[in-house]
Amino acid sequence: MSKIENNRLEEFRQERSEANEKILDLDHLGIKRFFNLDSNTYKDGALPADTKELLGLVASAVLRCNDCIDYHLEQCAETGYSKDEIVDALNVALVVGGSIVIPHLRHAIDTLEILEQEGTLDS
Amino acid sequence: MSKIENNRLEEFRQERSEANEKILDLDHLGIKRFFNLDSNTYKDGALPADTKELLGLVASAVLRCNDCIDYHLEQCAETGYSKDEIVDALNVALVVGGSIVIPHLRHAIDTLEILEQEGTLDS
Amino acid sequence: MSKIENNRLEEFRQERSEANEKILDLDHLGIKRFFNLDSNTYKDGALPADTKELLGLVASAVLRCNDCIDYHLEQCAETGYSKDEIVDALNVALVVGGSIVIPHLRHAIDTLEILEQEGTLDS
Amino acid sequence: MSKIENNRLEEFRQERSEANEKILDLDHLGIKRFFNLDSNTYKDGALPADTKELLGLVASAVLRCNDCIDYHLEQCAETGYSKDEIVDALNVALVVGGSIVIPHLRHAIDTLEILEQEGTLDS
Amino acid sequence: MSKIENNRLEEFRQERSEANEKILDLDHLGIKRFFNLDSNTYKDGALPADTKELLGLVASAVLRCNDCIDYHLEQCAETGYSKDEIVDALNVALVVGGSIVIPHLRHAIDTLEILEQEGTLDS
Amino acid sequence: MSKIENNRLEEFRQERSEANEKILDLDHLGIKRFFNLDSNTYKDGALPADTKELLGLVASAVLRCNDCIDYHLEQCAETGYSKDEIVDALNVALVVGGSIVIPHLRHAIDTLEILEQEGTLDS
Repeated sequence: MSKIENNRLEEFRQERSEANEKILDLDHLGIKRFFNLDSNTYKDGALPADTKELLGLVASAVLRCNDCIDYHLEQCAETGYSKDEIVDALNVALVVGGSIVIPHLRHAIDTLEILEQEGTLDS
Repeated sequence: MSKIENNRLEEFRQERSEANEKILDLDHLGIKRFFNLDSNTYKDGALPADTKELLGLVASAVLRCNDCIDYHLEQCAETGYSKDEIVDALNVALVVGGSIVIPHLRHAIDTLEILEQEGTLDS
Repeated sequence: MSKIENNRLEEFRQERSEANEKILDLDHLGIKRFFNLDSNTYKDGALPADTKELLGLVASAVLRCNDCIDYHLEQCAETGYSKDEIVDALNVALVVGGSIVIPHLRHAIDTLEILEQEGTLDS
Repeated sequence: MSKIENNRLEEFRQERSEANEKILDLDHLGIKRFFNLDSNTYKDGALPADTKELLGLVASAVLRCNDCIDYHLEQCAETGYSKDEIVDALNVALVVGGSIVIPHLRHAIDTLEILEQEGTLDS
Repeated sequence: MSKIENNRLEEFRQERSEANEKILDLDHLGIKRFFNLDSNTYKDGALPADTKELLGLVASAVLRCNDCIDYHLEQCAETGYSKDEIVDALNVALVVGGSIVIPHLRHAIDTLEILEQEGTLDS
Repeated sequence: MSKIENNRLEEFRQERSEANEKILDLDHLGIKRFFNLDSNTYKDGALPADTKELLGLVASAVLRCNDCIDYHLEQCAETGYSKDEIVDALNVALVVGGSIVIPHLRHAIDTLEILEQEGTLDS
């Protein structure tokens, strides 16, 4: 399937990237070190990078943050998780976090659909 | 290493088990179905059971529930995760959830030590 | 008062319904069972259905989820609660949850106004 | 059934009462007004007092605060709710808040048992 | 720098003000008293008003409420805090609350930019 | 007033210190960097160290973590805040976070009393 140029997810990626630049441009040492630490968290360690992206996704879902969910969904898709595996991870978040997670599950399913249309997620 | 008979974790297991019995004895259909659903969540599916225990652990850590952390630490140890892998998962929870997670990290490290002494966790 | 065709709430209802369909179409047994369990929670039991909708509303308000608030506001209106009773329930959420709940209270009041205009809520 | 003198709940009531006294003795106008506002929240209004205690219980359960749960359980028992009704309310909290609520459900069931033994809750 | 008439922040101020009016018009005594109590919280007391606005900002950031963040950012700017001081406060929120706070940090930086353009925040 | 040797707070300090040592001994680079980042957060920057301890206190209170509250109460006392100032900060947390914060306020007042008896907090 060919790439789609304009969608909600693409807009989010651009805004996220620009805003992160602005944050780093503040030149606050603590914030810059936090951002660096955050990136390194999801690299291969005792656990492989892909497992840690899945952990980041579930943490984001139970803490109910759509932007964080979108970011980790994309990373999970890129590291090769299938839609079924991602949905099975989201089910853990649903059971741990309860029905209050459902609106974020609806958001996640919509994002997964965009990732499929883009070809980022294997369908 | 030989089994330790009396420890905080063993006490928690017994109280947890007895209290869960009492909850099921209430005979509330919704609660009984939730407990059943909860158990089934961590069985092999699109994702293997052990990965889902790790997801449950990180979800519990960012939501900051020591009882849930202890339960999933034990399950993670029993499904074969090493201490280093579990600590790497807890690091994801620390970065996503922030320093407010640290007291729960302290609790988790203590539990891991008991699990090592018991022989449940490979050291 | 006659029905209003186009409003934010009507849009939410449609999107919510479509997204829930997509979630059920994923055919994940755990998720389908959770959705079923969720629906049954608000049926008559030891407590009447309407009281449980009010409980769902306050739980949604202190957990600060606008979509959940909108859903339960509608259910509360349909089961016959008056605006004054619903506002009195929201006050409990405000006191328990604090000023961080205020933006959600503003959202809820706007939704109540739409429900009044639609005739769903007795004014 | 005769009153039990010494139990965890009785100890909590005394400590809670003494600590609340100390807080009021700080003579901070804002805090004193908040405490006054809090008490008034659960008095008869558009909704009857007992319904609001039940709302307070569910709010406390999804926000996962054992002290608040114990306080509202006692109030719910005193205003005449039966064990079955209280458990049905806790089920709403369980479904909205997810399995992370379960340790607090275990705590609540234990408290209900003490309230039954004391005769505060009709069994 | 001259005032900008139309921006996201200005729209938020108007909607917030109108919705707060509607809430007070509900004439619920508890809610009116809460709003009054809330306003008084940020007046000079043992701590000066500006320090308390900064506390309100960090509380809003770790509880992840963009509307509350915007409100307190404006108050902090008006009471004379510099951008660097506000960013240093937000860093505390980031470290305490973790990476889940980052999307709200992005929002806050955008708001600070508007406040600078308006001349509310000294740049 | 002379120092008290044995109290709940002293026990907490020792356990906290020992557990933090164990965490650092895990030798997980990410965790060690997080702990380092956390310490640096509360050093003089655009805002003075003492203001940031007060921010840390309020963040801990609205996120309802007693261990974090105790740690920051001690730091606030040591950096010279008076009891009245600390209580005024806690009032901000109470209003933002709601009555669910009250049990933590009770805990905080007890800790302040110990800090006074120890002479750490000026009374």
